[in-house]
Amino acid sequence: MIRAEVELIVPFHDVDMLGIAWHGHYCKYFEIARCAMLDKIDYNYMVMKATGYVWPIVDLQMRFVRPAKFNQRIRVRAELVEWEYRMKIKYLISDAETHEALVKGHSIQAAVDAVTGEMSYASPAVFLQRLGIDDDVC
Amino acid sequence: MIRAEVELIVPFHDVDMLGIAWHGHYCKYFEIARCAMLDKIDYNYMVMKATGYVWPIVDLQMRFVRPAKFNQRIRVRAELVEWEYRMKIKYLISDAETHEALVKGHSIQAAVDAVTGEMSYASPAVFLQRLGIDDDVC
Amino acid sequence: MIRAEVELIVPFHDVDMLGIAWHGHYCKYFEIARCAMLDKIDYNYMVMKATGYVWPIVDLQMRFVRPAKFNQRIRVRAELVEWEYRMKIKYLISDAETHEALVKGHSIQAAVDAVTGEMSYASPAVFLQRLGIDDDVC
Amino acid sequence: MIRAEVELIVPFHDVDMLGIAWHGHYCKYFEIARCAMLDKIDYNYMVMKATGYVWPIVDLQMRFVRPAKFNQRIRVRAELVEWEYRMKIKYLISDAETHEALVKGHSIQAAVDAVTGEMSYASPAVFLQRLGIDDDVC
Repeated sequence: MIRAEVELIVPFHDVDMLGIAWHGHYCKYFEIARCAMLDKIDYNYMVMKATGYVWPIVDLQMRFVRPAKFNQRIRVRAELVEWEYRMKIKYLISDAETHEALVKGHSIQAAVDAVTGEMSYASPAVFLQRLGIDDDVC
Repeated sequence: MIRAEVELIVPFHDVDMLGIAWHGHYCKYFEIARCAMLDKIDYNYMVMKATGYVWPIVDLQMRFVRPAKFNQRIRVRAELVEWEYRMKIKYLISDAETHEALVKGHSIQAAVDAVTGEMSYASPAVFLQRLGIDDDVC
Repeated sequence: MIRAEVELIVPFHDVDMLGIAWHGHYCKYFEIARCAMLDKIDYNYMVMKATGYVWPIVDLQMRFVRPAKFNQRIRVRAELVEWEYRMKIKYLISDAETHEALVKGHSIQAAVDAVTGEMSYASPAVFLQRLGIDDDVC
Repeated sequence: MIRAEVELIVPFHDVDMLGIAWHGHYCKYFEIARCAMLDKIDYNYMVMKATGYVWPIVDLQMRFVRPAKFNQRIRVRAELVEWEYRMKIKYLISDAETHEALVKGHSIQAAVDAVTGEMSYASPAVFLQRLGIDDDVC
């Protein structure tokens, strides 16, 4: 199971007039956890590009359960749940102390050839190898 | 039909290392179109709060069809599609010249009593009146 | 005189808990006006890079005179005030209606060779030509 | 000496088309270090407001020495250098490993009465007490 968790403190500049984190900022928290997860399997954006692919986000869904407040310590978890044809990652943001869920969501990324710009209908071998999957067996 | 459209130019600081607008910034473009739409019915965040409610986003979905580039002129449309029990808004971001779709999405907001913090299961009368709907008839 | 002016509306996501635009967001407003100014002389970031230079910001100063509020219509002016050895741009953000000054500032950019990464002690000819200045005469 | 230091990793969404952190994002890094410093003396924005003052930033200066890159681990230091009549904070952002300076700067904040909105020409007693300074002696 490929997964990463990061802890963050909600910064002042992410909090809106109503005293809660503006919903759009959670995309950044997802990004930070996603990058930490990709680093773990040595497949971050630099490696992706160097090995011939970019992986644009094609779909993002977020459910806001409870608002986060200024200075609140939060935990952001990213977990890879699909990898064969595309990359689907699930997210959970929760309070670092009470573990109450704040935001749930997922993102879907598709592999695109960095040179031709064409979308790939199966995950590139270099990515599957990072996951310990032998491409030939698939 | 309640709807608003705004035109924006993708600013330099929204563009990532891959030369495309980072996906999370589209939340801001949605916000700008949503606020323009709410202004049209005289029910922006200041009016909401002054009349006793806040409307946190509880759900957001985005589908990224084509990447936007630096300096690209884009059009963002927000359209109210549900209002009785909650506020559901559909979005379409497209190239301002070619009209090619770039991003599609929707958001769902729920009315929350600004004093008690309790979620309201039906839209407050003050909002429905803004839409020209007589609350008693509903 | 090289100068550009843009009009913006302070968006909801730029406003903090105290009900005013968070000071760091003015960097974005400066950026938008700077890009509009550079577009006017056909020397935007794409042209810079295509003609061999990048121009990182090396110095930025901002003085906050009056806070901007949510939905306030503001005007951002950028004006080129130095060009021979470096690019110095002055900014003024004011209320679009009352013309009251909100923020003043300036930025300094230095030309860096895009290939070698070395800083250039004089402005590249391609930039001066955009300004209508014959490099040889300087 | 009142001072705080935080460590951050430059996130993907802060990096521009040229592969370096966009200069405006350093305002956020300054903010995070400033808040950490204010927390240390139990005088964060919530305490400020609860004790009758807001402290808007009136001046900000930044000097960009070396660009920060994606995924670079950086250290941000904030240090209180003036407190009697206003709050002046100096910042240093450096590479967390090599300690090379990346950005230097300072901010100046003025105390404003939260009720009347009037600027205070001396620092409020409640702030000086946090610093262990007896107001009467000043």
